[in-house]
Amino acid sequence: MSAMRIVIIGGVAGGASAAARARRLSETAEIVLIERGPHVSFANCGLPYHLGGEIAERDQLFLQTPESMARRARIDVRVLTEATQVDPLARTVTLRSLGDGRSSRERYDKLILAPGAAPIRPPLPGIDDPRIHTLRSVEDVDRLKELVDGGARSALVVGAGFIGIEVAENLVRRGLRTTLVEMQDQVLPPLDAEMAAPLHEALRRGGVDLRLSRRVAAFEPGERGLTARLEDGSVVAADLALLAIGVRPETALALSAGLRLGEGGGIAVNAHQQTSDPDIYACGDAVEVRDLVLDRPALIPLAGPANRQGRIAADHVFGRDSRFRGTQGTCIVRAFDRVAGMTGASEKALQRAGRSGGYDKVYIHPNQHAGYFPGAAPLALKLIFSRPEGRVLGAQVTGGEGVDKRIDVLAMAIQAGMTVFDLEEAELAYAPQFGSAKDAVNFAGFAAANVLRGDHRQVHAAEIGPASTGNGSPFLLDVRDPDETAAGTLPGAVVIPLCELRDRLDELPRDRAIAVYCKVGLRGYLAQRILSQNGFEAANLSGGTVTWRAHHGLPEPAPVPAVGVTS
Amino acid sequence: MSAMRIVIIGGVAGGASAAARARRLSETAEIVLIERGPHVSFANCGLPYHLGGEIAERDQLFLQTPESMARRARIDVRVLTEATQVDPLARTVTLRSLGDGRSSRERYDKLILAPGAAPIRPPLPGIDDPRIHTLRSVEDVDRLKELVDGGARSALVVGAGFIGIEVAENLVRRGLRTTLVEMQDQVLPPLDAEMAAPLHEALRRGGVDLRLSRRVAAFEPGERGLTARLEDGSVVAADLALLAIGVRPETALALSAGLRLGEGGGIAVNAHQQTSDPDIYACGDAVEVRDLVLDRPALIPLAGPANRQGRIAADHVFGRDSRFRGTQGTCIVRAFDRVAGMTGASEKALQRAGRSGGYDKVYIHPNQHAGYFPGAAPLALKLIFSRPEGRVLGAQVTGGEGVDKRIDVLAMAIQAGMTVFDLEEAELAYAPQFGSAKDAVNFAGFAAANVLRGDHRQVHAAEIGPASTGNGSPFLLDVRDPDETAAGTLPGAVVIPLCELRDRLDELPRDRAIAVYCKVGLRGYLAQRILSQNGFEAANLSGGTVTWRAHHGLPEPAPVPAVGVTS
Repeated sequence: MSAMRIVIIGGVAGGASAAARARRLSETAEIVLIERGPHVSFANCGLPYHLGGEIAERDQLFLQTPESMARRARIDVRVLTEATQVDPLARTVTLRSLGDGRSSRERYDKLILAPGAAPIRPPLPGIDDPRIHTLRSVEDVDRLKELVDGGARSALVVGAGFIGIEVAENLVRRGLRTTLVEMQDQVLPPLDAEMAAPLHEALRRGGVDLRLSRRVAAFEPGERGLTARLEDGSVVAADLALLAIGVRPETALALSAGLRLGEGGGIAVNAHQQTSDPDIYACGDAVEVRDLVLDRPALIPLAGPANRQGRIAADHVFGRDSRFRGTQGTCIVRAFDRVAGMTGASEKALQRAGRSGGYDKVYIHPNQHAGYFPGAAPLALKLIFSRPEGRVLGAQVTGGEGVDKRIDVLAMAIQAGMTVFDLEEAELAYAPQFGSAKDAVNFAGFAAANVLRGDHRQVHAAEIGPASTGNGSPFLLDVRDPDETAAGTLPGAVVIPLCELRDRLDELPRDRAIAVYCKVGLRGYLAQRILSQNGFEAANLSGGTVTWRAHHGLPEPAPVPAVGVTS
Repeated sequence: MSAMRIVIIGGVAGGASAAARARRLSETAEIVLIERGPHVSFANCGLPYHLGGEIAERDQLFLQTPESMARRARIDVRVLTEATQVDPLARTVTLRSLGDGRSSRERYDKLILAPGAAPIRPPLPGIDDPRIHTLRSVEDVDRLKELVDGGARSALVVGAGFIGIEVAENLVRRGLRTTLVEMQDQVLPPLDAEMAAPLHEALRRGGVDLRLSRRVAAFEPGERGLTARLEDGSVVAADLALLAIGVRPETALALSAGLRLGEGGGIAVNAHQQTSDPDIYACGDAVEVRDLVLDRPALIPLAGPANRQGRIAADHVFGRDSRFRGTQGTCIVRAFDRVAGMTGASEKALQRAGRSGGYDKVYIHPNQHAGYFPGAAPLALKLIFSRPEGRVLGAQVTGGEGVDKRIDVLAMAIQAGMTVFDLEEAELAYAPQFGSAKDAVNFAGFAAANVLRGDHRQVHAAEIGPASTGNGSPFLLDVRDPDETAAGTLPGAVVIPLCELRDRLDELPRDRAIAVYCKVGLRGYLAQRILSQNGFEAANLSGGTVTWRAHHGLPEPAPVPAVGVTS
């Protein structure tokens, strides 16, 4: 029997992982790795930070070189080579050298496609202006860096997703006047709007000119650089522009092989990463994955899953039963001094999936570590869970230090199918520098479990508008302390500090729903317990005024009087 | 029906939680909280940091005051009051005021004991010297702080557990010449020795005079302060001493009530925290818990479980079915710039429990975040898992940043009953500042799963002594690069860099086991794969020379020539 011959198309995350794993599993296999660019296995997610200078040396971006990979794993690495066509019957792939343009055919026993996804360039007028960039490769960042090093003074970033935010921060870091335009009314579209809101402030505080709910209509050559005309008629002039509005799976090669695509346009694969042709595998950003929480197909381009998919594909090539379990969309981004992360389903994803009735949510604002230890600072944590079972469906956290830890802990909870009752009992590491005896994750569990047990009746920010008083709206009760309410309270609210509540129950209506609130939701919960047990129809504003303000797009920390007091 | 009357003994972690939870569940209950000290709900775990000044204000230690707790939760808080006797038939508890010495009796419907644990004072000669302190309360730290503020210049800390290490660090911070004496050959006795080793260096680097495997034989008044005579005849003079050799459950009151104690001497309770008297509950450091992993009773004094137990006791008082699931021993400590944490069973605990045959382990040294991002630094991670199932039994991590996150993630894995195969597939948050596309947790899963699948054959540091060459010992193969091995290698090792290995197989013996190694174990694994597939009997030194040195107590980063090259 001749040696197994594996051809892998794409040498970054998934492809590089597949190649390395294949070699570990077989010393005799012939492994050919084809990469269109000049580099393999580079630090995709580091590109914005090389632009900004935080990753000072360009060489640091290369996790391996074609030479090191070839030498260490005895892989036939061919960079600057494009795969143009697959013949699945002959089991050959046509290659074209980008150097001399010559074509050749490569035979395979198994083919692994890891072509990635390409940045979307919408068909706007002027989109081909050479000053409009995208960021996918080291060469892309080289070009951008050259412009910045060469004295570019202003930049337009289109799209406030992960890459858009990271590039905007790094352009500001380099001293460029940077405008970030996003068509949605929030940054980080995968997150729910109220959880992304703290990043709006962080970006603006950091110096980014953030323009939400704006679309670019056209690009035009400007006096010095280029000019983007927005749909609202406003104009942004910039020396360079970056498009970061999303990516599209690279499927040309898969289509040439007649492979089946999924609903969303990615290459369809089974749990072993096998395509509709059992000798062809696919992994990474080009494939359609199963959204684990929503149990439906999705396009979720992430480095971690790409790497694991490559490993699984190689495993299956060698007869192993490895399976990709799907993706839960765990992601994180830093924007200046703020961090936002999520895992699992967002509320809007649940609503889009028609699951509005099956979940509930809590908002909490615990410190990242013991409040008595220096540096304590609040996180904002939103936990989404199934109703009535309490299964953790999703979590979003924003804050500074400690966001990543809670996202990871909750990612494990989702992977394990744990419930909010399990979160109550989570035993996490506590010393004052690292956590609290009752960690943020425990508190999320307490709050959610209290809701499911009927102890905690909540009202959500959406139900209390910035100016909602009148018939049918609830009686608003603010239980914060006088030093907090002196600066203002919600329109129409009555103030009774928590400590006085038991003695002032006769000031409250028994014929009307009471929405009680405090700053972050804890005292409000205590007040609701008192009120409910005394026969009032009371509910607590989940997350308090902090979440309420984030929901209504009011800045935090807010000059509270701006909210207004009507009485 | 008259109101439920709940008396709670002990106002810190478990007792305070029980009181607050009881009030949330019932507005009508009478809740009496008895505390021997002057404070309730203070930051126990912050005491060392107030001594050192990191927590500058003493007031920050008070999470609640007796007054605030009384006011907010309408609790009858009685500080400076001791409970001396329980009459379970009459359902009364005898109280004695520490102010006027008067006794009274308090009736209860339900009694919750949260008396904590007391620092052990061994019956050594001179132990009653007033300069010998323990640290449990704010008053204890007041006394210590007064001595330090008053010019104490040297200190002896006995016991290098969590409190001993934290106090030693903080005494050094205050400028005291500090000696830390520990009778075991390692600090942090719950950890396995090789995982605690990095803290030895951190403590010494930080300025602590760490003396392992030493016992204090006696204390004597010294010229200025006191003198401790150690069993080896050496002497330590110090202006003050702190005993931190462990704690003992406070069970006097429980015994007065005739309650059953557990094997280890803590108060025995069921999952509802009920003692052998169904009207008496107990929680916190005084109770015996179930060790979740070893499934046996244990004394594990931790703040998190204490708080949750208090909550559960209160729940059950009001007829709820809440259950404490047991403790997995999650803990963490910072020692200067190093952090060490663990969760689940240690290897020595498994061995003590007679479970030597049922587990395996891997050591890895991944970076805490992407290697290409500034600040990347290695963690040392030991993962212990059942064999053959792969269930995660325990984890220990040392390093700097990112230790707490991995401990928490692995704590969730243990709680959920996850396997190393689940860790392979964990989807954690990746941006270069926070993690890697393949996180440390994934790598731990990969390494362990490779072991269970038979792909990764390991040899452990214990099997390769610092001077073990000769018959029966394996052929040692060092696959590091020349720039690393130039400084030395293990005794008798042959050096063949990984990249040259495939071409130099004829230099290796086919009639002898080969132990291959590198610095951290990754290249060694790759080499073992090459060798095994080429018919050699090869195993990889898990964790590489880093783990090997930690195991054999050789400093890291080591002046490698000290290890010696014999050939």
